[in-house]
Amino acid sequence: MNPPPSSADKVSIVLFSGTTDKLMAATVIASGAAAMQKQVTIFLTFWGLMAFRKGAKEQPPRISTDFADFADFADAAMQAMQAKKVPHWLDTLRDAMDLGDVKVKACGLTMDLFGLKLEDLEPVVSEVTGVGSFVEDSTGGQTLFI
Amino acid sequence: MNPPPSSADKVSIVLFSGTTDKLMAATVIASGAAAMQKQVTIFLTFWGLMAFRKGAKEQPPRISTDFADFADFADAAMQAMQAKKVPHWLDTLRDAMDLGDVKVKACGLTMDLFGLKLEDLEPVVSEVTGVGSFVEDSTGGQTLFI
Amino acid sequence: MNPPPSSADKVSIVLFSGTTDKLMAATVIASGAAAMQKQVTIFLTFWGLMAFRKGAKEQPPRISTDFADFADFADAAMQAMQAKKVPHWLDTLRDAMDLGDVKVKACGLTMDLFGLKLEDLEPVVSEVTGVGSFVEDSTGGQTLFI
Repeated sequence: MNPPPSSADKVSIVLFSGTTDKLMAATVIASGAAAMQKQVTIFLTFWGLMAFRKGAKEQPPRISTDFADFADFADAAMQAMQAKKVPHWLDTLRDAMDLGDVKVKACGLTMDLFGLKLEDLEPVVSEVTGVGSFVEDSTGGQTLFI
Repeated sequence: MNPPPSSADKVSIVLFSGTTDKLMAATVIASGAAAMQKQVTIFLTFWGLMAFRKGAKEQPPRISTDFADFADFADAAMQAMQAKKVPHWLDTLRDAMDLGDVKVKACGLTMDLFGLKLEDLEPVVSEVTGVGSFVEDSTGGQTLFI
Repeated sequence: MNPPPSSADKVSIVLFSGTTDKLMAATVIASGAAAMQKQVTIFLTFWGLMAFRKGAKEQPPRISTDFADFADFADAAMQAMQAKKVPHWLDTLRDAMDLGDVKVKACGLTMDLFGLKLEDLEPVVSEVTGVGSFVEDSTGGQTLFI
């Protein structure tokens, strides 16, 4: 019998941001952690939750305005992604969910604030939960705020 | 006798950002963690510290520019917050401090940089400390950079 | 004989952002952690990696656009830094590397995306690695996403 996973096996992500670059970073980290057998939980809040409304893949990419005025950076990034056929972040996430233990949960407060229901979100989101419950579940592991 | 709190009972937040959306996220997480009996420490630095200068509640709300040009997002957020009477982040923080073990400390380097003294800050800030001391105190728990 | 370092002695930073204010925050935290005898690993990705291309110190400072339109904040920050002779973030990092155990690694996916090689980066970057490997190495310590 395998031992039960220890708390060191947990990687938790508060996904607050909704720009394409950070959505890519979050899903790539989730993917890498899943490949390393970690239990991954992504907690969607604010702009991060808004990005997971149904039709996410039809939305235009959105790069952080911190860099949008730097043509060399932002243009190079977008062109390189197209040329290299970098997968959409939602597909990266789906692959991670196929590969390992990755759960995506929506912040109850944000859902209430924007009047959203679970069926308004992409089906990768499995449940609505509270921030206290998320904090408790992520205890003992690594937690990233993205 | 209760056992002493273990390091797994700590949630530490480096609060670097000063936009209203992230101040809300940080204080809601602090509140959820306090409700779960965690020892919460918020370390204010740079824009996060600037947001805690006296008169914080009189400042106009400031949404991240990443989203400000998206009328559907930013306007919906502000209107929903007003309609739902979402408390000011400083009140959310005060409630968390009443509820559990939440301490707010100011980064000494940032204080020196901007020529600030403890009495220039909202009274929820209890002391000025160094980054090394913060890192040491947060060892073993969850640490978020917001 | 000293005991081997425990996992609680690790501080890991995913450095995603490339604005001067966050580069300063990341390197100051690395410095504070190194002074506290932590094993520090900085994992450069996306804009954070772009900021470490050779010639980093010749780049103009870049403040987050969240604050750039607030003259009191951004101007005060830049003037205070010059008046106080705040070191460049790359020098803060070099000092931290002299002081303690600080390693800087580049994200392989980002390197591929932008067609970068290790010799295109500042020599403080010692190697290219994958996100899974970074997640595994940082297990049990504190991990910040900046």
